[in-house]
Amino acid sequence: MPVGTAASVKSLTTEQLKTLSPQSSVLSPEIVLSPEIVLSPEVILCNTFHLMLRPGIERIEKLGGVHKFMSWDRAILSDSGGFQVFSLASIRKVREEGVEFRSHIDGSLQFLSPEKSIEIQSRMGVDIAMAFDECPSYGLSHADVERSMELTHRWAQRSLAARRSPLFGVVQGGVFADLRKRSVEEIGAMDFDGVALGGIAVGESKEEMFDIVNYAASLMPAGKPRYLMGVGTPEDLLDAVAAGIDMFDCVMPTRNARNGTLFTSRGKVHIKNAKYLEDEGPLDPQCDCLTCRWCTTRSTTSGSTLT
Amino acid sequence: MPVGTAASVKSLTTEQLKTLSPQSSVLSPEIVLSPEIVLSPEVILCNTFHLMLRPGIERIEKLGGVHKFMSWDRAILSDSGGFQVFSLASIRKVREEGVEFRSHIDGSLQFLSPEKSIEIQSRMGVDIAMAFDECPSYGLSHADVERSMELTHRWAQRSLAARRSPLFGVVQGGVFADLRKRSVEEIGAMDFDGVALGGIAVGESKEEMFDIVNYAASLMPAGKPRYLMGVGTPEDLLDAVAAGIDMFDCVMPTRNARNGTLFTSRGKVHIKNAKYLEDEGPLDPQCDCLTCRWCTTRSTTSGSTLT
Repeated sequence: MPVGTAASVKSLTTEQLKTLSPQSSVLSPEIVLSPEIVLSPEVILCNTFHLMLRPGIERIEKLGGVHKFMSWDRAILSDSGGFQVFSLASIRKVREEGVEFRSHIDGSLQFLSPEKSIEIQSRMGVDIAMAFDECPSYGLSHADVERSMELTHRWAQRSLAARRSPLFGVVQGGVFADLRKRSVEEIGAMDFDGVALGGIAVGESKEEMFDIVNYAASLMPAGKPRYLMGVGTPEDLLDAVAAGIDMFDCVMPTRNARNGTLFTSRGKVHIKNAKYLEDEGPLDPQCDCLTCRWCTTRSTTSGSTLT
Repeated sequence: MPVGTAASVKSLTTEQLKTLSPQSSVLSPEIVLSPEIVLSPEVILCNTFHLMLRPGIERIEKLGGVHKFMSWDRAILSDSGGFQVFSLASIRKVREEGVEFRSHIDGSLQFLSPEKSIEIQSRMGVDIAMAFDECPSYGLSHADVERSMELTHRWAQRSLAARRSPLFGVVQGGVFADLRKRSVEEIGAMDFDGVALGGIAVGESKEEMFDIVNYAASLMPAGKPRYLMGVGTPEDLLDAVAAGIDMFDCVMPTRNARNGTLFTSRGKVHIKNAKYLEDEGPLDPQCDCLTCRWCTTRSTTSGSTLT
């Protein structure tokens, strides 16, 4: 799922988003996609935390919901705001009831709870909502992560009770296998429409990450979509698919591209590096996107001539 | 001609540039264009001044010329750098030979003359080059503008002598009718492939501007393209066409759009103004571009529903 944090997938129009060129080489040189295949996402993600602060749920609702607000007529999944409250809000106070935090935009006092998050997601009119969870930092003790996970489980029950649309639960448990097992079992047993792995790619090593993803995915309910939140690089996606994951979201593709970092069949290219100043070649010799096609063909075409 | 100052028409891919939607309403509500008409520019403009400073003519030449550098396979016209030397370079020294100035990028000492400008434009490989001229500020005395115009005429002869491709001459003379008459006659009598009006829209009133444009255009050679440099608003274009002008360039369409100002059939819209916060309507009710079509139809369509 491409990420439209503030109800816009940055740098792309919705038309461009629907007709992205196939770039099989980015996934792996061995994978050959048919040229007819277009990466045309059926679901995109938007952020409850960002949208509740600006432009605010009242305004989105007044303008007909988030689909109309961003002119996207396919499915939208919203996260719950949980991850952002813990990663972006500098001042926050977690209670059983929910989380009080300061807006990073205007400093105003805000509140999110399972019921509040579900209400906002429902009023946005998304197709898939996420249960409100606490996302513990990497490096906390087993006891702290366990306490946090138990809060997430109680919040999951409250999110379910407030459900008004398809709703996914979120598994936590940090890098601890026993906690992940317990969390998959408890969240998996609840009446969610899909199950997500949260608290992944928050600072742990790739090895730790895939130990947990492989283990947790093997325990997840077979009959429900399995969603790995916030992952990842092209290689990560392939490894996670092999582990049994069905859905992903990550800001990486658009954020990296905006900042001049490109995923290619030869690895990452930092296009602003001096060595590319006079490089005439395509960004990726195995890629057939418009930009790479231009670079490949332009050495044999000449400029126009006014006659 | 859309303006690609640094060999890129900002915010548009070359493919988008070739297939711009028709927006007849922007020109005038009375003008009805066929829906099949696409504003697909045959010529775009790039800036000698900007490109000689960054990335430099050596690099552009090494990469196969400006067409290949920007992946544009239609015609390109370059200005001579004259206007920018006088409007952008903070430190400059004008002599009969040419102009010495400091780069606004790295402070390096640079030099432009008729011969140097024509050489750079030729090495870029543009389809139409412009003669190197001096563009006097608005508000100078008749005597000062006359001295400047005479220098421009001598530089025009030197530009012609250095010509290596189709070359347009530039008429100067400020807001003084007698000087414009003399300049049109002298430049028009030289062996240029087209004649441009320079030093327009540099601070004078609209009335002064069109007094000069109407008068000068009526004196310009009938058999050569007439180019009004640096103009202008949609209304300006219509008025200038009525005066006999054939070609224009202006950064206004892309620069305004990037900054949230839109030309519509109801006049300029500053879309960041608070009054548009909850405006659901199209940017222009008479426009049929993608964005306006979305706004027009979205009040009757509903968001997708996951089933």
